[in-house]
Amino acid sequence: MPKFPHFAERLNRIQGSVFEKYRSKMKEKGPYMIHLHIGDTYLHPKFNLPVDSEFLKKRPYFNRYCNTFGVERFRRAAAEKLNEDNGFTVDSEQILATSGATNALSASVISLLDPDEEILILTPCWPFFPGMVKVADARGIEVPFYTELYTKPDLNITAYLKEFMTPNTVALYLNTPNNPSGKVLTRHQLEQLADFAKYQDLWIISDEAYDGLIFDGHEQICIGTLPEMHQRTISIFTFSKSFMFAGLRLGYLTSDAEVVKEINKVLVHQVYSPSTLSQYMMVEPLKHRQDWIPKLCMEYQELRDMFIEKMQIPVICPEGTYFLFFSIQAYLRGRKYWEVIDQLIDAGVAVAPGVDFGSNFKDYIRICFTGEPPERLEKAIERLNEVLA
Amino acid sequence: MPKFPHFAERLNRIQGSVFEKYRSKMKEKGPYMIHLHIGDTYLHPKFNLPVDSEFLKKRPYFNRYCNTFGVERFRRAAAEKLNEDNGFTVDSEQILATSGATNALSASVISLLDPDEEILILTPCWPFFPGMVKVADARGIEVPFYTELYTKPDLNITAYLKEFMTPNTVALYLNTPNNPSGKVLTRHQLEQLADFAKYQDLWIISDEAYDGLIFDGHEQICIGTLPEMHQRTISIFTFSKSFMFAGLRLGYLTSDAEVVKEINKVLVHQVYSPSTLSQYMMVEPLKHRQDWIPKLCMEYQELRDMFIEKMQIPVICPEGTYFLFFSIQAYLRGRKYWEVIDQLIDAGVAVAPGVDFGSNFKDYIRICFTGEPPERLEKAIERLNEVLA
Repeated sequence: MPKFPHFAERLNRIQGSVFEKYRSKMKEKGPYMIHLHIGDTYLHPKFNLPVDSEFLKKRPYFNRYCNTFGVERFRRAAAEKLNEDNGFTVDSEQILATSGATNALSASVISLLDPDEEILILTPCWPFFPGMVKVADARGIEVPFYTELYTKPDLNITAYLKEFMTPNTVALYLNTPNNPSGKVLTRHQLEQLADFAKYQDLWIISDEAYDGLIFDGHEQICIGTLPEMHQRTISIFTFSKSFMFAGLRLGYLTSDAEVVKEINKVLVHQVYSPSTLSQYMMVEPLKHRQDWIPKLCMEYQELRDMFIEKMQIPVICPEGTYFLFFSIQAYLRGRKYWEVIDQLIDAGVAVAPGVDFGSNFKDYIRICFTGEPPERLEKAIERLNEVLA
Repeated sequence: MPKFPHFAERLNRIQGSVFEKYRSKMKEKGPYMIHLHIGDTYLHPKFNLPVDSEFLKKRPYFNRYCNTFGVERFRRAAAEKLNEDNGFTVDSEQILATSGATNALSASVISLLDPDEEILILTPCWPFFPGMVKVADARGIEVPFYTELYTKPDLNITAYLKEFMTPNTVALYLNTPNNPSGKVLTRHQLEQLADFAKYQDLWIISDEAYDGLIFDGHEQICIGTLPEMHQRTISIFTFSKSFMFAGLRLGYLTSDAEVVKEINKVLVHQVYSPSTLSQYMMVEPLKHRQDWIPKLCMEYQELRDMFIEKMQIPVICPEGTYFLFFSIQAYLRGRKYWEVIDQLIDAGVAVAPGVDFGSNFKDYIRICFTGEPPERLEKAIERLNEVLA
């Protein structure tokens, strides 16, 4: 079987950066282009890292391999954070340091799913998650969910999910606060998901990447803290969103110590461990999080409110994250969806196309309302209004 | 099919840290224990990182996501290094930044191997590589190789490798300088491997992790620089060994730009990208590498010579890397192999068991002669002599 120059078949099933196809067109526009298609923040971190030669001298092993489960003082700080803020009762043995939430999600998928097994993916969802399932040669089953809950908060979740089950279903992927819809699941909704998982013997991969980015006093619940759920849930956190340190590629997951040990086996075969230095660097921001993250969240909420107020079309008000996600079906006025996306790029504003978040969202767009400074956001809103309203 | 609490079957085929089983026993010994089982260095980096608040101010995006292929100035510096030192002729488009060589190897395996396909693994080899192949549900075929070449430098490689081929063989994994044997493949040996790969339509994954750690003036050749080999070879480099910055988890790979694009698709699904900050931090050490890495290499060579001289049993003298690898069969004197490993740990010196490097090396041990400072190395040698000689 001659192989070269052919790649593994799984590469035909995944794509790279979801924005790759627009890159050259956007590049031509230079600084005129306002980038609201990526999930990032225009702000510099609100925590000043004490990183100087003294910092490095006091951590002389920053350049060396660490324990593949993570640096002990980092794992302890992460466990304390989860216990104090999120209602977990975990110790450092139940923490696995990872190269961002991406790495934690990917290692979890590979640890849990055998080829051809199925995982229910509640959608709309982060575009790379279905790709991870494909990389593991498993199957993701899209379940339209979060946007439904804005209009049907009393949805009978058990009855609804049951229709997507097959004899091959072994896990459920969940993300609250949800990227891209901004939905924050309520305790009652999570209890139904938990009961369903227990009844159906499902693992849960709970993506808590937007932990802490919650508006209007909504309550943030982690499904892993519900009764008997910790051991069947991989709860995944990151420093890329509310902590604003995406560039350090650091995250962590928690579950039973035995589960953590199994996932570590995959992680050492993917990256060996996350950066030792990144772990040292995140201990202080983690310990002082209450001094700066709630302020950041307030600023984001103000940006959200400004954005929604100035938009001349009604959009769903997100309960968390830093995204707006809405259908533009009513504003096409005879144009095709992709013509409108092109017109937006021509007008100088990049948004993420809905289809990347699930096949049910082909007429949606996602906007990151923290990706550029307020004055440029306002310009972007004008352009959006021109093309859409 | 109830799944929880069962994991994916592939987890039964891999192990985590190869030293996990000795951890508690070694911990009991405290500082008495001399750790020569891990591939690391006792030295602090010989390059002073200019990392202070000024450094961070001048790189205000260090905290943000980077291009998933890597930071452009890092990719350019890596390409220049490969062109100047290793004989490549690549530009930054042919560089993919990765979270260490581990991540580059893992992404390559997943990109190239379909389930049940076979890759020839020249052994002895780095213990995690066969595990990566298992994670991808593919099959690694061990080919005893590097140690053979110490005694049979004129081995007919083509005829030898042919015996391991099946209709499912699609790739070859190669590592020179070799961990653990210290063998540095000659141009003639590499040419035979290259011809074999071309004739058999094989991909090559070339692990150059020990790039630059070469002794006695041996010539280091990268197989990817031989005629027509770049496009079928993934050449993989790291900052963890000769650069001494394992804790930053940074490496890179090079191949044709089209191959780089395909592997990037897998990498974004594993880690999204390596640390932006690590990439910024490694640009200067990379540019000034000639000022400090050759000196480091000299120091390592002296440590090697001291070690071999003081050992009371003859060991193969490694041509590169920082390992000794030899059979202890002749020194068992009625003891079982594992009894000797236990006696070594009891005596306060940890070595890596040979079986982790390939099933043909069950009576070997690997020693890292740079893992502890010279005075502790000398103590370790005394203990080794007591137990073995």
